[in-house]
Amino acid sequence: MKYSYSIGIDLGGTNTELGLVRSDGHIVARRNLSTKDYTDFPTFVDDMVKAIAELIASAGIEGLSSMDDLQGIGIGAPNADPTRGCMVEPPNLTQFKGVSNFVEEFKRCGVTVPVAVDNDANAAALGEMVYGGAKEMKHFILITLGTGVGSGIVVDGQLVHGSTGTAGELGHNILIPDGRLCTCGRKGCLETYTSARGIVTTYIEVRNEMGAPADAKEHPGWITAETTDAEIHSITVGIAANAGDPLALETFRRVGHWLGIACANAVTFSAPECIFLMGGPTKVGEPLLKPLRESFDEHLLNIYQGSCRIEMSKLNANEVAILGAAALTNQ
Amino acid sequence: MKYSYSIGIDLGGTNTELGLVRSDGHIVARRNLSTKDYTDFPTFVDDMVKAIAELIASAGIEGLSSMDDLQGIGIGAPNADPTRGCMVEPPNLTQFKGVSNFVEEFKRCGVTVPVAVDNDANAAALGEMVYGGAKEMKHFILITLGTGVGSGIVVDGQLVHGSTGTAGELGHNILIPDGRLCTCGRKGCLETYTSARGIVTTYIEVRNEMGAPADAKEHPGWITAETTDAEIHSITVGIAANAGDPLALETFRRVGHWLGIACANAVTFSAPECIFLMGGPTKVGEPLLKPLRESFDEHLLNIYQGSCRIEMSKLNANEVAILGAAALTNQ
Repeated sequence: MKYSYSIGIDLGGTNTELGLVRSDGHIVARRNLSTKDYTDFPTFVDDMVKAIAELIASAGIEGLSSMDDLQGIGIGAPNADPTRGCMVEPPNLTQFKGVSNFVEEFKRCGVTVPVAVDNDANAAALGEMVYGGAKEMKHFILITLGTGVGSGIVVDGQLVHGSTGTAGELGHNILIPDGRLCTCGRKGCLETYTSARGIVTTYIEVRNEMGAPADAKEHPGWITAETTDAEIHSITVGIAANAGDPLALETFRRVGHWLGIACANAVTFSAPECIFLMGGPTKVGEPLLKPLRESFDEHLLNIYQGSCRIEMSKLNANEVAILGAAALTNQ
Repeated sequence: MKYSYSIGIDLGGTNTELGLVRSDGHIVARRNLSTKDYTDFPTFVDDMVKAIAELIASAGIEGLSSMDDLQGIGIGAPNADPTRGCMVEPPNLTQFKGVSNFVEEFKRCGVTVPVAVDNDANAAALGEMVYGGAKEMKHFILITLGTGVGSGIVVDGQLVHGSTGTAGELGHNILIPDGRLCTCGRKGCLETYTSARGIVTTYIEVRNEMGAPADAKEHPGWITAETTDAEIHSITVGIAANAGDPLALETFRRVGHWLGIACANAVTFSAPECIFLMGGPTKVGEPLLKPLRESFDEHLLNIYQGSCRIEMSKLNANEVAILGAAALTNQ
């Protein structure tokens, strides 16, 4: 078997990770740049190109002697514009003002292979398709739960970008009209119910309704009445749920219920074979997945029953960003 | 200019209309078959083939002498399976049991040109793309309001069919969890709020809240307190709204509000350039469109502001079914 190789770049506010990725999804080698040390974009790209050359040289793979031998370079970046191959005013990278065009800068540096850019949720969806659980799928959706709720939608084997390049923002689908206030300024977005913050908000609501169990202190992992609202994080609630804390379990029952409706609604749009989930809050497992699947079945239109399942992402959490970015070179 | 020609077939429970359609959207000639007179599917297709031959002969167009000269034959049919080219147990056509395969039957009759089948909302969306207001568009959605609420979704110039062939059922997107009971057995579907029946239900709710105006009789078109709930139809409410009936106006304000949220949610999925509306209840015009556009703007995520407009379909209501079916031959 002869492999091909791509570069996947995960561009974050603090660090930028570069990986040399083999076509079977093995990350051969990684390198790291300190994003925040760069004040101008061309210098940043110059150093990325140097790092890529070093990755290739250090790997010592037959047939891979220069950047020209790569399948391509993929970049997962905030505020990405995949159509133009750039990022625009990324909020956590204020040093890069205006439009930062990767395609043009890499070309200036002599890179001849294709350069592709997209946001992290879209990249993760492609990663799932190229290296993960969606290898044979033409229609699927990936939903990432984290600080926010992101999504990548694949229809007929292609990411849906829409007329703006920014399609696939299911986190800002309004799940409950006039519901919880969202950071986007609107009300009732899915994100306000199922993000890490949404889980905390829900736990606090549940505790206000039901009161913390009097014997919480006797159960390791349960959240006690003494824990202040400010001390509660989604991870705390997840640990409590898996320790049997009834309030934490009720919290994830509600979160699963809401996410199930959102997933059922997504099916009326593109009838995917599978909806994949990833991100910190999904690690709680069954306390979320069981009510989620029950709600999904309950709210799915009859013609779709049995046609779509809900699964965890098959990619490793600490590899998905690089694999997803590398997968962008396959579109 | 040299035209090409297609056949568009609108298969309904009572009548089946066949039209010879020129590539500029002109319907050259029509013919009609009485669907309910047929007891078996092969005989029905035999007669469709005869009717098509007659349409071609009667048109007397140079270069169009037989079915072989057509671009194709498109059929808008209930319970269509576009992947297999058939309809499956159509509810209003119980005489055609099991799978009725158009592609195979037309082939048996010696038809050599492509035969395409889809549901009416998908056909209408393609009609809009080929002959109507979406000619230059790659990304748009068409929503049909009527007895039900249907939709056709176009992404990258292709209808979204999904893994089941039945994607694009926005009428059964759950707009308000635990809301109104839907004919599908679930609760809160968009259809229960914005179909013809949804408009009537809303009017009755509004009248129960506000009471009919005491001077309704003095205003032609207004609905009086004497009109029973059973006598109210969506058309009545539309006429009343355009005559200034405050309850009918409030009804469409609410319907527009709900439909605006649904349209804003659809944009988070596929970021279309335009959402087209068609169907009886949309004919009311501004009493629906004004609150709809206001709600859409209010509920649209900031990154999509200004990128998507809401328009009425540019196709003629009595031509859309045939034009849509004919347009299926363009996919």
